[in-house]
Amino acid sequence: MKPFLHAFRVPFHELDPGGVLFHAHLFVHAHEAYEMLLREIGFGLNRLLKEGKLAIPLVRATADYRHPMHLDERIEIALQVREIGRTSFGLEYRFLHDAKCCATAATTHVVINRCSGQPVPLPAGLVSGLKGYLSEGT
Amino acid sequence: MKPFLHAFRVPFHELDPGGVLFHAHLFVHAHEAYEMLLREIGFGLNRLLKEGKLAIPLVRATADYRHPMHLDERIEIALQVREIGRTSFGLEYRFLHDAKCCATAATTHVVINRCSGQPVPLPAGLVSGLKGYLSEGT
Amino acid sequence: MKPFLHAFRVPFHELDPGGVLFHAHLFVHAHEAYEMLLREIGFGLNRLLKEGKLAIPLVRATADYRHPMHLDERIEIALQVREIGRTSFGLEYRFLHDAKCCATAATTHVVINRCSGQPVPLPAGLVSGLKGYLSEGT
Amino acid sequence: MKPFLHAFRVPFHELDPGGVLFHAHLFVHAHEAYEMLLREIGFGLNRLLKEGKLAIPLVRATADYRHPMHLDERIEIALQVREIGRTSFGLEYRFLHDAKCCATAATTHVVINRCSGQPVPLPAGLVSGLKGYLSEGT
Repeated sequence: MKPFLHAFRVPFHELDPGGVLFHAHLFVHAHEAYEMLLREIGFGLNRLLKEGKLAIPLVRATADYRHPMHLDERIEIALQVREIGRTSFGLEYRFLHDAKCCATAATTHVVINRCSGQPVPLPAGLVSGLKGYLSEGT
Repeated sequence: MKPFLHAFRVPFHELDPGGVLFHAHLFVHAHEAYEMLLREIGFGLNRLLKEGKLAIPLVRATADYRHPMHLDERIEIALQVREIGRTSFGLEYRFLHDAKCCATAATTHVVINRCSGQPVPLPAGLVSGLKGYLSEGT
Repeated sequence: MKPFLHAFRVPFHELDPGGVLFHAHLFVHAHEAYEMLLREIGFGLNRLLKEGKLAIPLVRATADYRHPMHLDERIEIALQVREIGRTSFGLEYRFLHDAKCCATAATTHVVINRCSGQPVPLPAGLVSGLKGYLSEGT
Repeated sequence: MKPFLHAFRVPFHELDPGGVLFHAHLFVHAHEAYEMLLREIGFGLNRLLKEGKLAIPLVRATADYRHPMHLDERIEIALQVREIGRTSFGLEYRFLHDAKCCATAATTHVVINRCSGQPVPLPAGLVSGLKGYLSEGT
């Protein structure tokens, strides 16, 4: 299926003294793409914060850096759903500049009850929304 | 009176491509010094967050940059209370490296009721705590 | 004259525990608007970094916060040039959400020779570019 | 062997609206521990930046989050060297609060020639320094 797309420009304040994107910022951009995906499928974090019952903490994050990203480059994040479990889901991200894949990342998220802190089954609407972006071969 | 002191090391990720501290990070370090001052006088933000009644939003921030700050430099922040009003207070910060003042900053904070969003008089304990760090000539 | 416009969405990672934009991030967004303005007038920081002769350090930054900014709000920055001096220039920013001005900011920048560290006259092209965005009444 | 230790306090500006450390900041703290280790063994990034011949880009970063970290908590990072290769090395980090492991992380770094961008053998001094912090069972 088609990935969810989210683009950003590499800003000055995210560069390191070598003039390339400092690695930790990649996770921030991945999170922004994830926020936009959740909004797209009707599960925006804003709604979650307001309702106050569920939270979706991130329990794992990984990134592989292949090519440095430079000031003003337009990076397109192609986000796909890698896995949908009973109480968790996994996302994967490719960071593309022109045709080149500069980095990949993956995150795993668990849905919990905010009071108990315990994992709960993914809401049905979240599952169906995520299914629209399942990666190939999953 | 003696200022409240808080030191930090300039870390790699706060440098810009020119190898100097990116300006906006100065405000983050000023805020950390402010957090430590509040803790010192028994009004830590942690307690405020847990009690949930009051908040202390920042309504004004200014900084003047005189000398660039570089990787690994130890910067000492000398924080003083510039002004204590009925519902607000003002702080001022000097960023010192060795004997040199690299930057100054100032912030103004208002105490509000978290529900109404309206300013409320500073708690007596906060006033007396802040008085211990009033700047000379105030 | 018309301001230069640059918009952003308030992202999750810039919220504080009270659910509102942490103040220091305002300066980061102001800087992004400034980067886009410089590009627009042909003086992008990328070119400056590559040529290596000039730098434009920020020597002063101020912000006034009027209304909190929340997750997912679209904030439009209206940037105008407040002042064009011999070796420096001043910018001012309004942060607008719908019709409401949530914050204002101002920055002062000096053009220096990167080797000597000394201020140098603004390049003619920079002056003429900035003039296109001078604020009313200047 | 004994790990390299580096501690930090969870600051207000790294909290998310849920009042816990936003995940991407973990990588920033891991990087600060790494900077301190390099200094300790005589290979500080400052020296690298000044000499200008070598760079040590990060090519992989992973983190597992087990327990949320809260405002003012003192987190101790226990850093060990997981692996020393010909042109790269791997580090691992445990984030400890009291006796509890809140998170773990790992990073892989490659030493490159800054001009060619190509991997080069680790300098002998770096190898011997890293060996002092090799993890058990390696």
